[in-house]
Amino acid sequence: MSLPGCFVAVHAGAGFHSPRKEEEYKDVCKTACLQAMQLLLKGESTLSAVTAATISLEDASCTNAGVGSSLTMNGMVECDASIIDGQTSLFGIVGCLQGVRNPIKAAKKLIEKQQSDNLSHGRIPPSVLVGHGARKWCEQSGIETCDPALLITESSKRMHLKYRRKIEGCSSKHEKAHEVKRSRIDEDDINGSVQDTVGAICIDNNGNITASSSSGGIWLKHSGRIGPAATYGAGCWAKNKTKDRSGVAVTTSGSGEDIIRSLLAKTCADHIQTVDNVHQAINEVFNKEFIGDDSEKHGGVLVVKTEDVDSVELLWAHTTDSMCIGYMSSLQKTPKTFISRLPSDSQSGVSLKMEGKYINFTNKK
Amino acid sequence: MSLPGCFVAVHAGAGFHSPRKEEEYKDVCKTACLQAMQLLLKGESTLSAVTAATISLEDASCTNAGVGSSLTMNGMVECDASIIDGQTSLFGIVGCLQGVRNPIKAAKKLIEKQQSDNLSHGRIPPSVLVGHGARKWCEQSGIETCDPALLITESSKRMHLKYRRKIEGCSSKHEKAHEVKRSRIDEDDINGSVQDTVGAICIDNNGNITASSSSGGIWLKHSGRIGPAATYGAGCWAKNKTKDRSGVAVTTSGSGEDIIRSLLAKTCADHIQTVDNVHQAINEVFNKEFIGDDSEKHGGVLVVKTEDVDSVELLWAHTTDSMCIGYMSSLQKTPKTFISRLPSDSQSGVSLKMEGKYINFTNKK
Repeated sequence: MSLPGCFVAVHAGAGFHSPRKEEEYKDVCKTACLQAMQLLLKGESTLSAVTAATISLEDASCTNAGVGSSLTMNGMVECDASIIDGQTSLFGIVGCLQGVRNPIKAAKKLIEKQQSDNLSHGRIPPSVLVGHGARKWCEQSGIETCDPALLITESSKRMHLKYRRKIEGCSSKHEKAHEVKRSRIDEDDINGSVQDTVGAICIDNNGNITASSSSGGIWLKHSGRIGPAATYGAGCWAKNKTKDRSGVAVTTSGSGEDIIRSLLAKTCADHIQTVDNVHQAINEVFNKEFIGDDSEKHGGVLVVKTEDVDSVELLWAHTTDSMCIGYMSSLQKTPKTFISRLPSDSQSGVSLKMEGKYINFTNKK
Repeated sequence: MSLPGCFVAVHAGAGFHSPRKEEEYKDVCKTACLQAMQLLLKGESTLSAVTAATISLEDASCTNAGVGSSLTMNGMVECDASIIDGQTSLFGIVGCLQGVRNPIKAAKKLIEKQQSDNLSHGRIPPSVLVGHGARKWCEQSGIETCDPALLITESSKRMHLKYRRKIEGCSSKHEKAHEVKRSRIDEDDINGSVQDTVGAICIDNNGNITASSSSGGIWLKHSGRIGPAATYGAGCWAKNKTKDRSGVAVTTSGSGEDIIRSLLAKTCADHIQTVDNVHQAINEVFNKEFIGDDSEKHGGVLVVKTEDVDSVELLWAHTTDSMCIGYMSSLQKTPKTFISRLPSDSQSGVSLKMEGKYINFTNKK
């Protein structure tokens, strides 16, 4: 007899992961998987599990989410985060949130309030909150807030200074974006390289799927800029299996404006549900919808497809130099973590690296 | 010989339009059409024309956009606005914007800066800005700002007081949203009734299409709440004709969270491009994607499909009591404006009213 199991997959961004920090990133993914799996094995919801994984990723100062996030042009941390629940299709999104250590907790609470709050006069609880209003709502809703400065690390302060100096050293009018050569080994490149937006996908033993995304956005963004992690359909997507369609979840990372334009998470998920072969589906979305024209597009997706309650098809694809991934089924004792890298002869922003595997977690008794 | 022409369509919201205010709403739509057509006939871009139409709609104090917008729970105006350009697929979105009389000008400027700004070091100009950062960006970008209080009208102050009193009179815990009976003639109903989000669609004589959406959001929203007019794919969508696909534009209005969930504008546009019959496409989207389950869903769409440069198919559909619409081709001397109403025996939030017409503006010479 085979028993259903649970599954967790996480990523610590598609961008450029320095080889010397590889172990640190993998450790972060490992902890995130363990945190989520612990809850799933106790029978807690995928909403709780995906939140726990994301908190773990946010709390790591090496990721671009929560503490240690990229700083805005004026030196602040402004976070985006979202969760989508594949069973109910409820979603919670916060954008441009300051002074909240774990923005994903606010996304979770937004979903919970939609499930429980009955506002008078047919008013509908919000799904998306941004800025000062979002922070105020956190305070009123029991989400821990903090001094915004506490989310800034020494390392992010140093990077900010360095980037500002670089930018102040050149006139925007005399240098075209496409003329800036992107170096595969230059960790200081602002666009496309270090984009450590994080995300998670959890599946419980009833086949419920929930996905998340959390990000500090791009370095030196204008204050108020919203990225894919705060854009419905762009940062994450999840849909439970129905009798006609497989279950699917996607979480994305990379160059924000391009990911929004293609609504990358939803577009991948929708296409997987219409094309049988997941590799083919993702390949088509990247080539037709995401990369599209001839400019470079930096992005990555972590995808899970489910047909049964005891196996998943896991796939990762990225045009960025690297993507850091972790996953764990309820049959594994420890998570598997790794950094997927573009082959050395391929071009970042143009070439697509794609790999996947079936993971069977049949628990025979 | 037939010459190509231009076309404008606008709406002043899907919701409930009081018969006694009917002429006022229609006049607003008339002015908006004329403003846009004037620019199109001069050969100005659809981006400029759609902005001009939307400014007209925002400036009318009877619409829920710009001055006269619905107030937040704490009595402020916070506006959402967006434009999408069907030729370039560029988009500009502002959300939760305070103290800007014409939020649509900021959406336009975001697109223009994406076209013209070459930031150094591969940085990408923002597409979406919210909150205080968005206002700051407006100040820096030459968009006129004002004292936020100047956008509050006497009428919106009165409504706010009335709604607040109603809400403070009932405990949210003891009244379920679905138990609140919606009266078709009660203008005071908060949800679904007076949702005068506005929008516009412009087509120039080269077949370029641009669409917009602008809204003050729902009455008594939590500060920071973002609605469809600030959600990519939900409030408006536009795509020029290609050799394989017809041109299409959509602008939406109604119950925000439901419109976001179905990404109504994009979903309608995508479906129109795959199903030949526009009525069938919109009917399927409303029934399968928007209304979906058995709860009431209040929304409306204004749709334009183009196959040639001298004609369009215009369609409007709504589950709300009414929708106020205006349109004008370059052959018309004056715009056509009207209020579409659900038949008296149908149920708001459940029944779908849908009508359309072919408009030929062949200019024979």
